[in-house]
Amino acid sequence: MRRREFEMTDQREIEQFLEESSFGFLSAVRPDGRPSITPLNFVYADGAVYFHGSRAGDKMDAIRSNPHAAFAVAREYAIIPSYFTDPVMACPASAYFKSVLIAGRIEIVEDIAEKAMALEAMMKKLQPEGGYEPIRPDDPRYAPRLKSVAVLKLVPSSITAKFKFGQNLSDKERSAVTAGLLERGLPLDRETAGLMERYRPGAPQQ
Amino acid sequence: MRRREFEMTDQREIEQFLEESSFGFLSAVRPDGRPSITPLNFVYADGAVYFHGSRAGDKMDAIRSNPHAAFAVAREYAIIPSYFTDPVMACPASAYFKSVLIAGRIEIVEDIAEKAMALEAMMKKLQPEGGYEPIRPDDPRYAPRLKSVAVLKLVPSSITAKFKFGQNLSDKERSAVTAGLLERGLPLDRETAGLMERYRPGAPQQ
Repeated sequence: MRRREFEMTDQREIEQFLEESSFGFLSAVRPDGRPSITPLNFVYADGAVYFHGSRAGDKMDAIRSNPHAAFAVAREYAIIPSYFTDPVMACPASAYFKSVLIAGRIEIVEDIAEKAMALEAMMKKLQPEGGYEPIRPDDPRYAPRLKSVAVLKLVPSSITAKFKFGQNLSDKERSAVTAGLLERGLPLDRETAGLMERYRPGAPQQ
Repeated sequence: MRRREFEMTDQREIEQFLEESSFGFLSAVRPDGRPSITPLNFVYADGAVYFHGSRAGDKMDAIRSNPHAAFAVAREYAIIPSYFTDPVMACPASAYFKSVLIAGRIEIVEDIAEKAMALEAMMKKLQPEGGYEPIRPDDPRYAPRLKSVAVLKLVPSSITAKFKFGQNLSDKERSAVTAGLLERGLPLDRETAGLMERYRPGAPQQ
């Protein structure tokens, strides 16, 4: 059941999270009707999600037989222990996270210029410091590699996101979780407390 | 194409990685034939993967219509920039990671004792410091919650793993990547260099 209080609809927030995330999981349906799932580096560029890889394998077989795919990216910020808000029961234990789910159709990209665009966008994302010759379709050093690499493009039919940061808590519970995070002090705990305030229902708009 | 040099077949390594990983992605096939994908906390216990959640929603609809599922867990250790081994071409850019893929059939767990076992195992994994009353099927405080929560069980038909840490590199390339990681010094870079040595073809058995 999708709880509406965790839905994130701000496109800037969603795109920023996709930009910060280096990999996600691509799900497709195999020719035998079973699901496949593959972790992949990706880039979100020109409104589509691009991947690269080998021309063979489970993922490619699945895509050729059924172009419907779903791609998910998630980052867990904090495991929230039950005792932050309840000294007895385990039930309030939770996890705070951002996740984005993109459903759509997969296309196998054959156009060399689009392949080069996608791979260059992925390099800019994952190696922003540079240190390589930019990937251009007319560069003879890259031409044979551009032909042989498989580039996939997920054209979104829907993009939904869930940013779960205690939006369902009462004020008293929220204070207790925030205090627990700040006391615990794991690397992401302070940032998580900030996101709880940022996404709190009724918080001032950014 | 699955490259055999990255395959991990040691069950201890695989189970340890599942124990260290708090969440993964569950893929199923929806009644309309399209794939679904859902990030979920999980525990691997008694040879199965357990999840919990609401009794409603996309994931439950998918599972009721088609019990085949695939679950994946991955952790990225390092983005390897191309310039560690090549001053010009982008092609050697890579990512080193561990991933485990579990395919099988999903069952909806109805037995209260098994639900309690799974949820207690998940609490022990995600909240090992305790601070809650253990979840027991005969505890009247937990009984109504155990009835209402949905617990899913993925019974594996196959478990495969890919630990990619430069096993395909030449000795010269491996030295260059190791030196690059140690010089860069991101939080996981030293550990990644250690894993490159641990999983190197021909490395002494652990």
